[in-house]
Amino acid sequence: MNEKDWFFEKYEDILALGFKFKKVLFHKKSKFQTVKILETEGYGPMLINDDIVMTTERDEFIYHEMISHVPLFTHPNPENVLIIGGGDGGTAREVLKHKCVKKCTMIEIDSVVVEACRKHLKVTSQGLNHPLLDLKFEDGAAYVSRQESIFDVIIVDSSDPIGPSAVLFGDEFYQNVHRALKEGGIVVAQGESSFYEMEIQKRLLKTVHNLFSKVGFYNYDNLTYSSGCWSFLFASKKYHPIKDFKEGRVNQSGIEFRYYNEEIHRASFCQPQFVKKVFESLWTL
Amino acid sequence: MNEKDWFFEKYEDILALGFKFKKVLFHKKSKFQTVKILETEGYGPMLINDDIVMTTERDEFIYHEMISHVPLFTHPNPENVLIIGGGDGGTAREVLKHKCVKKCTMIEIDSVVVEACRKHLKVTSQGLNHPLLDLKFEDGAAYVSRQESIFDVIIVDSSDPIGPSAVLFGDEFYQNVHRALKEGGIVVAQGESSFYEMEIQKRLLKTVHNLFSKVGFYNYDNLTYSSGCWSFLFASKKYHPIKDFKEGRVNQSGIEFRYYNEEIHRASFCQPQFVKKVFESLWTL
Repeated sequence: MNEKDWFFEKYEDILALGFKFKKVLFHKKSKFQTVKILETEGYGPMLINDDIVMTTERDEFIYHEMISHVPLFTHPNPENVLIIGGGDGGTAREVLKHKCVKKCTMIEIDSVVVEACRKHLKVTSQGLNHPLLDLKFEDGAAYVSRQESIFDVIIVDSSDPIGPSAVLFGDEFYQNVHRALKEGGIVVAQGESSFYEMEIQKRLLKTVHNLFSKVGFYNYDNLTYSSGCWSFLFASKKYHPIKDFKEGRVNQSGIEFRYYNEEIHRASFCQPQFVKKVFESLWTL
Repeated sequence: MNEKDWFFEKYEDILALGFKFKKVLFHKKSKFQTVKILETEGYGPMLINDDIVMTTERDEFIYHEMISHVPLFTHPNPENVLIIGGGDGGTAREVLKHKCVKKCTMIEIDSVVVEACRKHLKVTSQGLNHPLLDLKFEDGAAYVSRQESIFDVIIVDSSDPIGPSAVLFGDEFYQNVHRALKEGGIVVAQGESSFYEMEIQKRLLKTVHNLFSKVGFYNYDNLTYSSGCWSFLFASKKYHPIKDFKEGRVNQSGIEFRYYNEEIHRASFCQPQFVKKVFESLWTL
């Protein structure tokens, strides 16, 4: 293995994920992080922030469909949606497939991520050109702290709780998210993996448990994060992701999915026994 | 990264999975393959056949619970079970937790795998000492070809369709499996991943579709195979894994699970949209 053709991401010095690449398409140090895009051999263009894989054109549909459609099909009429982060544009693309959405605001801290993805992640970044998208470059946590009762759904499409995303995993942030949501509001967030970061998940669950009436995690597959399923945090003021999920609405929407469907929606909330046991006292789904 | 402390498994020269290890616990060339056990930093002892990761003591419970309990809780009264392969002993351990099982026959081609696992995969190999286990070292395909209407469940716990396992993915093998099963018989088999080996899955599905009335795949997580969910093939003469799955039997069994539970049983058969589309015409669940 000629190491110069391979990008390696390590997890805690026990695991390494390597991706063979043909060339570096983008490499710039922003005010917040180092943003890189590699043309990989097997996964198309790959976005890497601070040496951590964010997304690839091959498998981004899984993450973006699951972070968007689960809350948007749980809420009966999501009109006003906020995305925090999501600079690659994939979440905006999926959110704006919902005809009921009248406005989608996206607050990305790092304009360099958007610049890189517009140039090189053409499929993922489509959503960035949608006329209903209001894209602002600003600190998402600061933005949310100024909002009150205006969003139906808030999607926290962030990286791990290190660097610019750390604040998006804290108590104060979720208090502000709760206030920014309308009465029937739902928040979902990149929620790490029960196989690797259960302590982060426990902390997140504790935080939202104090604020929302329905809280839990739901799972999805990711081809370029460490092996094993990954999760999104789900917290809702009113609507239950299974009990209030209306049979038929998904197919009637006319949206074409590659990963998401009705059965996957329900199945994604089923947890392995070891996860159930750990979260039992905090889970309210 | 000091490469000498790392074991790398590559997938098609696009992806590499690396595991840091402390030492080589076992290394022997058998008649069939090279069998290695590494003491890894993060996953405990790891079994590697011909440079492909088979299982680790950290995450083996997922694979072994899912390959065993799904067919055994679908069949109303599995008394006689056959395991083909499964040299590490994990499948036998799970099968023999079912009190209704009166006999479990295990046909492993390579005694060196069993020798290595008995010595170094202590938790996984527990099942090998069970009094109801009849372990024979023989070619599984040849063994099955001589059986008729005697097994309730056959579990094909094999590696990829290269080397000694190739024959276990063929038409003739499944014709023999079908004949070896009783009237209400079920076979499950290591079924690769829809993200990497859909062609193999299609071929397997076509093969069993011609023989069994209920066929499909179900999914599980694996921490040491390439990222994304992995599948088991399910083929049944009579019993449906969801419609004939009796609510309550799982909890009444008294078995302690770490991954499997009733919800996971049902959820594991839900497939992403792109998988559903490809398999539509062959799937009969």
